[in-house]
Amino acid sequence: MSHPALKMRAMLDDRDWVVDAFSRIRDGTERLAAQLHPEDMAIQAMPDASPTKWHLAHTTWFFEEFILKAFEPDFAPHHEAYGYLFNSYYDGVGPRWARPDRGLLSRPTVADVFGYREAVTRRTRELIERSGESDWAAIAPILELGLHHEQQHQELICTDIKYALSLNPIAPTAFASPEPRPTIANDPETDDIAWVSFNGGLFEFGADGADFHFDNEGPRRRAYLDDFELAATPVTNGDFLAFINDGGYDDPRLWLSDGWDWRKARAATRPLYWRSSDNGWSEFTLHGERPLDRAAPASHLSAYEAFAYATWAGARAPTEFELELATLTAHDGAAEFLDPHAIGGGGRAHPTPVARPAAGKVGGLAGGVWEWTTSAYAAYPGYSPPDGAIGEYNGKFMSSQLTLRGGSCLTPEGHWRPTYRNFFPPAAQWQCAGLRLARGPVALRV
Amino acid sequence: MSHPALKMRAMLDDRDWVVDAFSRIRDGTERLAAQLHPEDMAIQAMPDASPTKWHLAHTTWFFEEFILKAFEPDFAPHHEAYGYLFNSYYDGVGPRWARPDRGLLSRPTVADVFGYREAVTRRTRELIERSGESDWAAIAPILELGLHHEQQHQELICTDIKYALSLNPIAPTAFASPEPRPTIANDPETDDIAWVSFNGGLFEFGADGADFHFDNEGPRRRAYLDDFELAATPVTNGDFLAFINDGGYDDPRLWLSDGWDWRKARAATRPLYWRSSDNGWSEFTLHGERPLDRAAPASHLSAYEAFAYATWAGARAPTEFELELATLTAHDGAAEFLDPHAIGGGGRAHPTPVARPAAGKVGGLAGGVWEWTTSAYAAYPGYSPPDGAIGEYNGKFMSSQLTLRGGSCLTPEGHWRPTYRNFFPPAAQWQCAGLRLARGPVALRV
Amino acid sequence: MSHPALKMRAMLDDRDWVVDAFSRIRDGTERLAAQLHPEDMAIQAMPDASPTKWHLAHTTWFFEEFILKAFEPDFAPHHEAYGYLFNSYYDGVGPRWARPDRGLLSRPTVADVFGYREAVTRRTRELIERSGESDWAAIAPILELGLHHEQQHQELICTDIKYALSLNPIAPTAFASPEPRPTIANDPETDDIAWVSFNGGLFEFGADGADFHFDNEGPRRRAYLDDFELAATPVTNGDFLAFINDGGYDDPRLWLSDGWDWRKARAATRPLYWRSSDNGWSEFTLHGERPLDRAAPASHLSAYEAFAYATWAGARAPTEFELELATLTAHDGAAEFLDPHAIGGGGRAHPTPVARPAAGKVGGLAGGVWEWTTSAYAAYPGYSPPDGAIGEYNGKFMSSQLTLRGGSCLTPEGHWRPTYRNFFPPAAQWQCAGLRLARGPVALRV
Amino acid sequence: MSHPALKMRAMLDDRDWVVDAFSRIRDGTERLAAQLHPEDMAIQAMPDASPTKWHLAHTTWFFEEFILKAFEPDFAPHHEAYGYLFNSYYDGVGPRWARPDRGLLSRPTVADVFGYREAVTRRTRELIERSGESDWAAIAPILELGLHHEQQHQELICTDIKYALSLNPIAPTAFASPEPRPTIANDPETDDIAWVSFNGGLFEFGADGADFHFDNEGPRRRAYLDDFELAATPVTNGDFLAFINDGGYDDPRLWLSDGWDWRKARAATRPLYWRSSDNGWSEFTLHGERPLDRAAPASHLSAYEAFAYATWAGARAPTEFELELATLTAHDGAAEFLDPHAIGGGGRAHPTPVARPAAGKVGGLAGGVWEWTTSAYAAYPGYSPPDGAIGEYNGKFMSSQLTLRGGSCLTPEGHWRPTYRNFFPPAAQWQCAGLRLARGPVALRV
Repeated sequence: MSHPALKMRAMLDDRDWVVDAFSRIRDGTERLAAQLHPEDMAIQAMPDASPTKWHLAHTTWFFEEFILKAFEPDFAPHHEAYGYLFNSYYDGVGPRWARPDRGLLSRPTVADVFGYREAVTRRTRELIERSGESDWAAIAPILELGLHHEQQHQELICTDIKYALSLNPIAPTAFASPEPRPTIANDPETDDIAWVSFNGGLFEFGADGADFHFDNEGPRRRAYLDDFELAATPVTNGDFLAFINDGGYDDPRLWLSDGWDWRKARAATRPLYWRSSDNGWSEFTLHGERPLDRAAPASHLSAYEAFAYATWAGARAPTEFELELATLTAHDGAAEFLDPHAIGGGGRAHPTPVARPAAGKVGGLAGGVWEWTTSAYAAYPGYSPPDGAIGEYNGKFMSSQLTLRGGSCLTPEGHWRPTYRNFFPPAAQWQCAGLRLARGPVALRV
Repeated sequence: MSHPALKMRAMLDDRDWVVDAFSRIRDGTERLAAQLHPEDMAIQAMPDASPTKWHLAHTTWFFEEFILKAFEPDFAPHHEAYGYLFNSYYDGVGPRWARPDRGLLSRPTVADVFGYREAVTRRTRELIERSGESDWAAIAPILELGLHHEQQHQELICTDIKYALSLNPIAPTAFASPEPRPTIANDPETDDIAWVSFNGGLFEFGADGADFHFDNEGPRRRAYLDDFELAATPVTNGDFLAFINDGGYDDPRLWLSDGWDWRKARAATRPLYWRSSDNGWSEFTLHGERPLDRAAPASHLSAYEAFAYATWAGARAPTEFELELATLTAHDGAAEFLDPHAIGGGGRAHPTPVARPAAGKVGGLAGGVWEWTTSAYAAYPGYSPPDGAIGEYNGKFMSSQLTLRGGSCLTPEGHWRPTYRNFFPPAAQWQCAGLRLARGPVALRV
Repeated sequence: MSHPALKMRAMLDDRDWVVDAFSRIRDGTERLAAQLHPEDMAIQAMPDASPTKWHLAHTTWFFEEFILKAFEPDFAPHHEAYGYLFNSYYDGVGPRWARPDRGLLSRPTVADVFGYREAVTRRTRELIERSGESDWAAIAPILELGLHHEQQHQELICTDIKYALSLNPIAPTAFASPEPRPTIANDPETDDIAWVSFNGGLFEFGADGADFHFDNEGPRRRAYLDDFELAATPVTNGDFLAFINDGGYDDPRLWLSDGWDWRKARAATRPLYWRSSDNGWSEFTLHGERPLDRAAPASHLSAYEAFAYATWAGARAPTEFELELATLTAHDGAAEFLDPHAIGGGGRAHPTPVARPAAGKVGGLAGGVWEWTTSAYAAYPGYSPPDGAIGEYNGKFMSSQLTLRGGSCLTPEGHWRPTYRNFFPPAAQWQCAGLRLARGPVALRV
Repeated sequence: MSHPALKMRAMLDDRDWVVDAFSRIRDGTERLAAQLHPEDMAIQAMPDASPTKWHLAHTTWFFEEFILKAFEPDFAPHHEAYGYLFNSYYDGVGPRWARPDRGLLSRPTVADVFGYREAVTRRTRELIERSGESDWAAIAPILELGLHHEQQHQELICTDIKYALSLNPIAPTAFASPEPRPTIANDPETDDIAWVSFNGGLFEFGADGADFHFDNEGPRRRAYLDDFELAATPVTNGDFLAFINDGGYDDPRLWLSDGWDWRKARAATRPLYWRSSDNGWSEFTLHGERPLDRAAPASHLSAYEAFAYATWAGARAPTEFELELATLTAHDGAAEFLDPHAIGGGGRAHPTPVARPAAGKVGGLAGGVWEWTTSAYAAYPGYSPPDGAIGEYNGKFMSSQLTLRGGSCLTPEGHWRPTYRNFFPPAAQWQCAGLRLARGPVALRV
C-alpha cells in the first residue's frame, strides 16, 4: 500500500478509503509493539523518551480528545484519568502527568492500553462512517492530522525503545532480523566525496497547501541562497571512524563551545550506539548488536558530533533550504523508509548503504537518516499556529532546536514530503540522525 | 505454620523439615507477586526502592551465589549476566548494575525471573537433600541466612510496590481487601497516655547465639539505663492528626535542624500516604485507598516527623535498649505480622489498632509498625563482620542510620525476634515505621 | 571624545592617536571600578557572571597573551599563573580555571590586578610607540580587536556587578546618581503603537570591511525580506506592566514551550530587577533602587518574556535583518550609550525614555536597550573564523543563542555599529535587553 | 595568659576581669583576620564554610541580639539588616540570609564589619561595667556563652579560610610562618603501636556544672564500658601514607558503604590537603604549602577515611567515652592549642608531632587534632535544651553527625575541657580532625 496519509486530502470524500487508511495506520502502530514484552513497553529510560505503552495510549487519546469528544454524540471518556495521563503537552487541554515520570505508571497495563486502542479505533471508525457531511468536513482534517501524528509516534516508538533496550547489558532484540541485502561497495575514503553544485538565487520554499503538511512547513516563502555544493551521499560510518581515529573527539577546536561542554560532560568518544571490543566495532540496533557497516550512513549523531565532523572534513553542514532545493531539483531516488507491517517479517529498521547516484544527482535525500542542518527551527514569515489547543502542535517548540530534513529508516513510508521539517535540540542522539556535507559559497579555512 | 526460620537452627539435622521451610518461604515470596502485573513488577519509583522483579531475582541470586556456586558439583550459572544484574551491594563478589537503574531493565522479563526462581529453588532443594554431612554443615547456616534474607526482601517487596503504586493517580490496589476486624475503641486523646515505668540499671542486651540472629545483634553486651517510662501503645493516626492541626509541620522549634531542612525541601505537610479531600482524611494502602483509621498506629513516618511529634508531645523517642528491655520484661502480646500465604485471601498488610494492655504492660511492641529509636545504628562492643563477601551484610551500613525495633505488619511472621535491629536513614518514609513515646530520666522542658 | 575605536582602522598610521585611544579605553574600564569596594569586585553571583576583578584581569591578559607574548622582545609573563587564571575560553591557548569558580579566587587581590593592568598597559604602550613597521602591521589589528574586546567587558562589568549587587538585601549602589532628565510624556497605552512600514525585497546585510567589525558580522550577504512593520519605539515598562496585570505570566499559551518551563522553574512573575512594595513598583539599578519609570524601555527581559509579551500584544519580535534594514534606512537618532568616564560624575547607566520619532522614522534603534530578535545566532554564508586561538572569539558560540541588535545604555559609546550582532541564550535576563514589536508579512492570529 | 573563658564562672563578680577577658577574646578574633585581605574575607568556598567577614559579624550579632537587645537601655540595632544577614540558624529569632549564599554579600564591607565589631564591643563593655547586679546576674552567663561561641568561630575562621585558600592555584598563605620546632624522632611504623589498656566498668561521664560547659555535655550520666585499649599516640601522616601505598583507597572492603560512595563520588585518593609532585608529598597549610611531616598527626581526614584506615590497621576508632575516660585518668600532657594573639608573630596553626608518652599514659589527647569517634552525636539521658532561641545552640543538630573529642591546634587555648563534644558529619574533611586507634573488647577479624 502506498502512502495512505499523503494522499488523504484528495481522498477525503471516499470514506471507505479513509477507514482503510485509518485502520491500517492504527494497526501499523500495534505491529511495532507485537514483538515487545509488557515490561519493555513500560520502561522510560530518560526524560526525553517515553514508554511504548505511553505512545500507544497517547496517539489514541489524540483521537479521543480532538475528535470523539467534539463530535461523538453522548461522548463519555473511556477512562476518566486517561486525559490527564496521556496528554503530552497541550496546555490548552488541561493539566497532565509529568513527562519524566511516564515510566512510573504501571497502570493502565499494556492490556488496558490495547483495550483503549481498540475502543477508540472502533468508535472513531464508526464516526467516520456515520457522521453527516457538515461534521465530516470538520472531522476530516483533524483525522488527517491525527494519522500523521500517529506516524510520528511510530518513529518515536522505535527510537525510544531502541534507547531503552540499548542500556540493558543483555542487549535485547526489539525486532526480528531483516532480510539480508546485497552489499554496496562504495569507497569510504573521505577525500573522495562527489560534490554536486547548485546555483544560488531567490527561491520559493515550503508547502503550498495542496497536500497535507504541518503548520510549520508554511506559509510558502522566499529565501535567497548563495551558490553551494552538497555531497552526493551522506557521511558513512567509515567516514566517521576516520574522524574518531584522527582524534576528533579530543580536539576542542573542532567543536562548538557548548558541543565541547556536552562532549566533556558525557565523556563521549563515539556515536551513541557504537561499541568496541576485541572483535572490532559493532553497533546496537533494533535487530540486536551487529558488526558496524562502514558503508552505511552514520546514524544517531548529535548535531555537535555532526558539526565537529564537518569542520574536521573541511566542510560544513547544509542549511534546510539547501536540502530542500536539492530534494526538489536533483534527487536520485529515496532511501528506505519504515514499513511497520513488515517489521518482524523481514522488514528493516536500520539504515543501509546509499549507492552513489548518477553525476549531478544527490542520493539518499529521503529515508535512511535524518540530516542535521545548521538552520534553527524557526517560524516562516507570516506563520501563525492554528487556534485552540491543536495550535500547540509545532509553534511553541521554535526555540533552541535545529531543523532536520529528509526522513529516516524509522519514518513510516508515506509520512514524509520534501518540505517536512523535523526538529530536535543539538544534543539529541537517540534520533536516527546523520549528516550530509556541504560547502560554499566561498572557500573555507584550510 | 509457626516461625519456620526462627527454629531452623534447632532443626538443622532434619533435612525434610529444612526442605519444607525453604519451599514454604520461597513460595511465600511468589505469593506476594501473584496479584501484580508484569508492568507493576518492572517499575522503580525511586533509587531506594527496587522493582518487585529485582527482589524476586536478587533473593534467588543469593542462593545461587553463596550456595550453588560453592557447593554444587559442576556448577554453571543460570544466566551469565545475572550475577552482574542481581548482586545488590556485595563488593567482594564483583561489579554490579547500578541500584538507581534497576527500573531500566525490562529483560529478563518477569517470566524469565520466575524461571530463574524455579531452577534455583529446585537445584538448592536437591543440594539440601543430597549433600554429604560435611557440606551440609557448611551449607546449613548460609541457607538459614538466605531464608532470613528472603524474608527481609518479602517486606521490601511490600514497601517498594506500595511506594510505586502510591504515585499512580489511578490508585491501584496491590493486594485484595483483608477480612474486616472488630474496631477498637481506644481514646485517641494525647493527654491520656498510659505510661509504664521501668527501673534503670545495668543490663545485658543482644543475641546470645542459641537461635538464629544477624551479626549486628551481637555480641551480647552490657548497657546502663536510667529510669524511664514508655507509652503503653504506639502513637496513633488520631494523635498525629492533632499534631498536624496544631501546626506541627510549621514550627521549626519542634524539628531537628536537618529534619526542618527535609520538611522544607519536601514541602511535607502530612505523612507520606495520607491524603485529604472533601471527604476528609484517607490513606493509601496496599489494599487501595481507605479512610484514615484514627485508632491505628501512625505509619510511614520519617524519623524527623516522629521526633518532631515527640517534642510537640513533651516527650521523646525511646532508645533501642529501652525497647528491648520492655519487650523482654513487659510485653503484652504481639501485634500482627505478615502472612505471605494469606495475602490475596483475606490477609492483611496494613497496621491495625493496638488494644490498651493490662496495667504495667506495654502493647504492640512486635508487629504493627517498626518503632523509630534515637539510637544510631552502630556496632556492639566487640562486633566484627564475618569473613568474605557475606560479611558485607550489615556492618558496612553502620553510618548515618537509626535503629528501629519491633517489626511491622509487613515483616513476615517468624522473622522477627526481640534483639532484631532494623535500620534506615532518618528521612526514610516508605518503610512501615511509627513511634512510641518515652520519657525520663528527668523532667523535660515544659 | 567621539568613538575612538570605531575609527581606529583609518588612524592606524597615527601612533599617537592609537596610544591615546588605547589609554583612554583602558582608563575607562578602571573608572567603572572606581566606586566599587574590593569585596564587590571579588564576588561571582552566578556562573554566567564574572567578578569585576576577573574582567579587569582578563582584558589585560588578552593584550599580554596575543600582543606582548608575540611581539615583545624578551617577553616574560607578569605572573606565571595569570595565563591559567584569566584565559576565558580559548582552548587553543591552554587549560584554564573553571568559569563558575572565578569567585573563589581571592588572590590575586584587586590591588594585584591593578598592578597587572598598569604593567601591561605600560608595556603595550611602549610596544605601540616603538615597534617597527612590519610588527606594527601585525600588531595593529589585534590591538584594535583587543580594544573592542575591552569595551565588551566594560558592558559585562556593568551587567555582572548589577546582578551581584541586586541580590544583596541592603540594595547597594554601584554608581553615584546620574543627573536628572526632563521627563518624556509618551502615552504608555499599548493600543497606541506607531507602526512604521517597510517594503520587502532582496537586500545586502553585514559588514563590508572598511571599518572595524567582528568576524561574525560578515561576510556581507544577501537576504530576502517580506514586507513588515516595526514599532516606532521599544516596549516600555508601562506596556509590560499591562501584560503582567493581564495575567501574562500565568497563561502558558503565550509562551514558548521551554519558556514556560523556564517561567515555572523560576516562579517568574516580573522582570528580573522589578520589585513590588506598598509604595508600588520600583526597579533595582546601578544607581540604587528607584521608582519604575513607565515611559522608559522595559529592560532585563529574557527572550522568553519578550516573546510572550509580543504574542500577548498580537505581534511578534523582529528578525535581525529587519532591525538592520530599519537602522540603515529609517533611524531617527540614537538613544544613550555608556560613557565610562562620566560614571560617578553624573553619567547614566540605565535606560531613559525614547521620544516618539518623526512619522516614518524608528526611534531608539541604537543604545538604550539591546533588542531581542527571533534570529538564531548563526554564521553568515561563507563565514569562517580566523586561524589560531583568536578564531575562538565568536564562531564557536553559534549554537542555541539568539541575536540581539542595537546596543544598550551599558554599551560604551563608539563600540556599536549597525551590523553589530550581540548574542545570548533566550533565558538570559541579566543583560540590558528589551524588545521592539514587529508585524507582518501577513495578518496574525487574533 | 591562661584560659580566660574557662575560669570565668568563678570570676563573675570581678567585672574588671570579665571586661579584660571579653576584650582579649574579641581582639583575638581580629588578630586572625589581620593578615588577610578584604577579598579573602569575602569569599565562600563551599556551603559549609563561611566567609571570614561573616564570622566577624555573626559573633558580634550574638552579643547584640542576646545581650544588648535584651539589656541595653534605649537599644537600637547597629544596622537594621544585620539581624537578617548575620543570624546563623536561630529560627526563634526570625528569618535569615541563606547559608550557602553568604559569599554573595559584598556589603557590608570588611571595614563596615569592623565598625560593627568596634561598636558592639564598646557597647557591651559599657553594659558589663555599668549594669546593676540583677541585670548582671542575667547577662553574665550569656556573655560567658557568647565568648565560648566566639572562640568556636575563631576555629571556624581558620578552617574555613584554609579551605578557601587551598582551592587557589597560587597557594596563598594565610598566616606568617611559625617558629621552627625541634623534630621528634618517632618511629612511624604501624606495627609499633604502643597500646594502653583500660579496665571496663560503669563510669560517670559529662559535665557536673561547676565550670562552664555547653548544654550538650550534660547532664552528667553513667555509661558502661568494656575493657579496651587505646594507641598512645594519634595516627600519623606516615602511618596514613602506608595505608595509601597499600591501596587503601581502592579496596571497598575497608570502607563503610556510604564512605565508599563518598570516596567514589569525590575520586578521593588522599587526605584533603595533601599534594603529590615530583618532589614528593606536601601539604597545604595555613602557613602555605609545606613538605608533609610524617611524624605529625594525620589531619583533615573525613570519618570515612579515618574508619577505613582503622579497619585496614586491624583496629577500630574509639567511642567518645573511651576517650573521655582516658583523658581523665591517663593523659600525659596537652598537644598545642591555638593562640590567636601569637598568629602572625611566630604562632602555629598546624599540628606538630606528639611525643611518645610515658608507659601507661596516652599522649596528645588534647589539642593537635580532633579525634573522630564512632559515637553518634546524641543527647545524654535527661538532656533538654534551654528555653528560647538560645536553646537552638546544640540540640537540634543531634542527627547524622559524629562526636569528635580532644580539640585541635586550631581550637583556642582555654576553650576546651575533657567533656567537650564537637560534632560533624562523617564526610567533613575541612575540620582539623584525625584519628586514634582503639581495640577490644575482644579480638577483631584478622
